[in-house]
Amino acid sequence: MPRERLGILGLGLIGGSLALALKGKRGAPEVWGCDRNKVHLRQALAKGAISRACAIAELASCDIVVVCIPVRASLHAVSFLGSRMRSGSVLTDVGSVKAEIVRIGERFAGKGVSFVGGHPIAGTENSGFSAADPLLFRGRSFIATPTQRTDEEALRRVDRLWKLTGSKTGFRMDPATHDRVFAHISHLPHVVAYALVHSMTTLRSPVPLGCSAGGFRDFTRIASSNPDMWRDIVLQNRKEVMRAIAHYRRNLDALARRIASSDERGIKNVFAKAKKTRDGL
Amino acid sequence: MPRERLGILGLGLIGGSLALALKGKRGAPEVWGCDRNKVHLRQALAKGAISRACAIAELASCDIVVVCIPVRASLHAVSFLGSRMRSGSVLTDVGSVKAEIVRIGERFAGKGVSFVGGHPIAGTENSGFSAADPLLFRGRSFIATPTQRTDEEALRRVDRLWKLTGSKTGFRMDPATHDRVFAHISHLPHVVAYALVHSMTTLRSPVPLGCSAGGFRDFTRIASSNPDMWRDIVLQNRKEVMRAIAHYRRNLDALARRIASSDERGIKNVFAKAKKTRDGL
Repeated sequence: MPRERLGILGLGLIGGSLALALKGKRGAPEVWGCDRNKVHLRQALAKGAISRACAIAELASCDIVVVCIPVRASLHAVSFLGSRMRSGSVLTDVGSVKAEIVRIGERFAGKGVSFVGGHPIAGTENSGFSAADPLLFRGRSFIATPTQRTDEEALRRVDRLWKLTGSKTGFRMDPATHDRVFAHISHLPHVVAYALVHSMTTLRSPVPLGCSAGGFRDFTRIASSNPDMWRDIVLQNRKEVMRAIAHYRRNLDALARRIASSDERGIKNVFAKAKKTRDGL
Repeated sequence: MPRERLGILGLGLIGGSLALALKGKRGAPEVWGCDRNKVHLRQALAKGAISRACAIAELASCDIVVVCIPVRASLHAVSFLGSRMRSGSVLTDVGSVKAEIVRIGERFAGKGVSFVGGHPIAGTENSGFSAADPLLFRGRSFIATPTQRTDEEALRRVDRLWKLTGSKTGFRMDPATHDRVFAHISHLPHVVAYALVHSMTTLRSPVPLGCSAGGFRDFTRIASSNPDMWRDIVLQNRKEVMRAIAHYRRNLDALARRIASSDERGIKNVFAKAKKTRDGL
């Protein structure tokens, strides 16, 4: 049986880390990489993360292809690749929004081609192959978002691939639930962090941000994330993100009213409940 | 000349770290400590952080007293101590809100007693002597908030004390400016973090918070801060905190409108400006 061949589209933080994590691993497939950014390709080849740099059309000849580019561009890539891949092959992705990509993936997958939505729960605020790390996925969860149409064997092949990176696998969420959950726990916090830091730049009298203790730096670290990538994520998950913002705003407003009216007990209750929840993470 | 004697009221994270930082330092004063919490006192004595545990009335005999208890209780302590200390002694504090304590400190300071408002910019989400760390202040700024009535020599004595802990000293802010600045860069982020985590607990369908990547944990770390302490801070700086919340809310609402209307360029601009600001910290 010839060695399986994996194609990775996009050798940035996630795709690059995936390639590096598989490098030299027993049972790992041969890895081909494709990226519009020639620097990423050169670095990935130099590090031995991929055995060959190829065009997107050539990726279609791989047994498994993992799409690791921003979520909007992924929609095009998945329709392009799905319709060109061979029967028996598996197409999957790593995007932070799942309903739309799963819809497109299933719609354009050719005969015998399986699409499996995936989301490795790992990342940093940095991007590009230079930020890639072979240990990025170690101990982190990989969530697959199958539907009734998803082929069970394809799902297992995708899980096996991520298991090789050290990820915890076997997690399942339906795409709509995934998008609701991540709107709250990931997309909303990014929107809040961006809004908070941005609001500091719109003050009439500027405040010295460097003055703050560690709190502000840590708190706003995610506002250093890639603006294009996150614009695409909030727009692709717009409905759920808007719901999450509205829910959070109602809570913030209720807390603000308690502060305005010096409601000591009410404030303490909110703070204490939040602390208990956070401490439990 | 007899060795100067320092009194520390409150041997929690800040007071305890101050005592530990001074321990064995050349030129450091003798340190007496006072705390309602007997565990803190026992731990501080056992670690040699203080040479004597005493009652608050005895602290009044010290040459310098640093009040390191939550901001509301500080108001009482400062009026009590200020009216009992000897001429030539200095009373100072470490609170995150300055206008009110400086007003009380100057009002109740007895003849020849100098009050100096202080704010060491250091801390963690933990509290109690067990969280104290002799290196907590190393390289961090100590901000003094003098007024026209503040004695210059007293100010220098307070700066010298903090310099011994490894703090960067010499920073000055008037109390009102301090409270406006910290409302934005510290109190608001805490309110936002508490509101965000609390809002997760009020969802009709719960979301698995543990699922999130590092972002959510880091982002919400400050929601693990002491609820009583932070209730007191936001209430003591209520006017400025409400202003900061209102300003942030206008920014959040503007961003939400841009998301609602799929204003790609507008969203990108906010995210990119926030990233640039955050990266510059």
